[in-house]
Amino acid sequence: MAFDYVKKVRICEVGLRDGIQNEKGAILTVEDKVELLRGMIDAGYKVIEVGSFMHPVKVPQMANTDEVYKAMQAYDIPDDVELRALIPNKRGVDRAVACGCKKVKLNVSASLGHNLANLNRTPAESVAGFAEAVDAAKSNGLEISGSISMAYGSPWDDDIPIDEVKKIIEAYMAVGITEISLSDASGMAYPSQVYNICTEVRKAYPDNTWWLHFHNTRGLAIANIIAGMQAGMNQFDGSLSGVGGCPFVPGAAGNVATEDVIHCLDEMGVETGIDNDKVIALSRRMVEMIGHAADGYVLKAGQSKDLKLPLPVRQPKK
Amino acid sequence: MAFDYVKKVRICEVGLRDGIQNEKGAILTVEDKVELLRGMIDAGYKVIEVGSFMHPVKVPQMANTDEVYKAMQAYDIPDDVELRALIPNKRGVDRAVACGCKKVKLNVSASLGHNLANLNRTPAESVAGFAEAVDAAKSNGLEISGSISMAYGSPWDDDIPIDEVKKIIEAYMAVGITEISLSDASGMAYPSQVYNICTEVRKAYPDNTWWLHFHNTRGLAIANIIAGMQAGMNQFDGSLSGVGGCPFVPGAAGNVATEDVIHCLDEMGVETGIDNDKVIALSRRMVEMIGHAADGYVLKAGQSKDLKLPLPVRQPKK
Repeated sequence: MAFDYVKKVRICEVGLRDGIQNEKGAILTVEDKVELLRGMIDAGYKVIEVGSFMHPVKVPQMANTDEVYKAMQAYDIPDDVELRALIPNKRGVDRAVACGCKKVKLNVSASLGHNLANLNRTPAESVAGFAEAVDAAKSNGLEISGSISMAYGSPWDDDIPIDEVKKIIEAYMAVGITEISLSDASGMAYPSQVYNICTEVRKAYPDNTWWLHFHNTRGLAIANIIAGMQAGMNQFDGSLSGVGGCPFVPGAAGNVATEDVIHCLDEMGVETGIDNDKVIALSRRMVEMIGHAADGYVLKAGQSKDLKLPLPVRQPKK
Repeated sequence: MAFDYVKKVRICEVGLRDGIQNEKGAILTVEDKVELLRGMIDAGYKVIEVGSFMHPVKVPQMANTDEVYKAMQAYDIPDDVELRALIPNKRGVDRAVACGCKKVKLNVSASLGHNLANLNRTPAESVAGFAEAVDAAKSNGLEISGSISMAYGSPWDDDIPIDEVKKIIEAYMAVGITEISLSDASGMAYPSQVYNICTEVRKAYPDNTWWLHFHNTRGLAIANIIAGMQAGMNQFDGSLSGVGGCPFVPGAAGNVATEDVIHCLDEMGVETGIDNDKVIALSRRMVEMIGHAADGYVLKAGQSKDLKLPLPVRQPKK
């Protein structure tokens, strides 16, 4: 037996997109988001999901995404920082181009049941329909990536065979997308499965770039990340303070907290390039902005390195 | 790279001891505890920590432990079920003998600072002092085991070198104890460390029996359990509903929830012999008895296998 894992990873901060998109309380203002984004860049993040170009009435928290991108143009953003947005289709590309967003991401559900219910199409058929968006992105010089939600299971399916996930990956590759996120919005992934899926897709499509996105719905997100790292994966999403729920189980935990992930990686000697003290401060700001605590651990318990009690001096025996 | 792990594990339920020992609310009655114990045996647990023989004024939740053991004698307990109690010293053995408890466990902190502060002795000196208790246990036909708390780090120490942990293990072995629990009450363990420590002690002391006890203080308990399983460990503690706090960080999470652990193991195809549906029902009773929710996930989110939405039928194209 061995315990090998990658020693350098990239973390994408998704708190401003998947984290807050379903928050029912205070809408984060452009100023709030700019404050957090500047803090993230200062903390060392190189990949940040800024928001999404969905219908503003359907997702009010994301309605000011265009304005956030425009506001960020006032600041000096290092060339190696990627500010990503989720888009539903070609209209999302148009909005991205108009506001200066240079990297977009499409999404499809791996669940046949989920996709049939929403769109009356198989997942691979939906991805084939993304060709127009991909062409528009590329002709405008935008980078474009894709994600596959419920890649590890869904409430609609007894099981999602790896071959079905591979069909979706191949559909993405057929329209020219090779940067792909395998996402567990339903919180059903478990470590041995993650290891097996990641090993399989890395072997089958060695030139693709991969992201893993885990929710901590059943307490397994960090175990899943480590299983992914044991399979050689090196890009993971996290959400400040753990904000973001499980869409299928009201009240259950959602996104894994970025500061919990980085705390574990710091302890394991894995390089992230991100200063977790700064992430923790940003998570506290996020909690203030959304008006309630989320499910992260380190915000409550502190980092192990910060837990220090004075060492007593041994007294002489009497 | 590989993802190998043991495929059969034993779970010890510690909710009635480490779980509730610091609960400040309702004291669990003998009847409450007997109800949970009988439920645990019915669910398939083979190892259960019933309570402790500490000073009743210092730990009121444990004051009725003797009565619980006596009350359990009214029931048919299978021979392969071990009802364990924590003891501080030889007086604990005397109480165990008097009430029919057949398996006891000693504990020492691996933290030099912690042990000096409490007892003005090194951990190994404390363990050497257990000889009287071990002799009393063995001469009365009791099994006796030992645990080492803070084996992975403590708030008092920058680091706890593995050689210090090995000295404590050897002190236990010198007094005749070879069943040893490596415990993380401070919630500072992390997966690569767990793998390394477990690999090292299994190699150095191949005839010992090991338990691992993790708190979920920083969200890493299940990742640590899996790392332990990857190092060949096969005995782990869990606490119904996750009851039990972190003694050093008020408000932080404590013991890992047994039902969360078994849910993960079930998904990974690991045999526990325990029916998690029954564990979940017991956790709900525990929450009723203590009067507040604990930090477990599956009680809120449900098991993945129970999350089923109806699969829609594909509609013909128009």
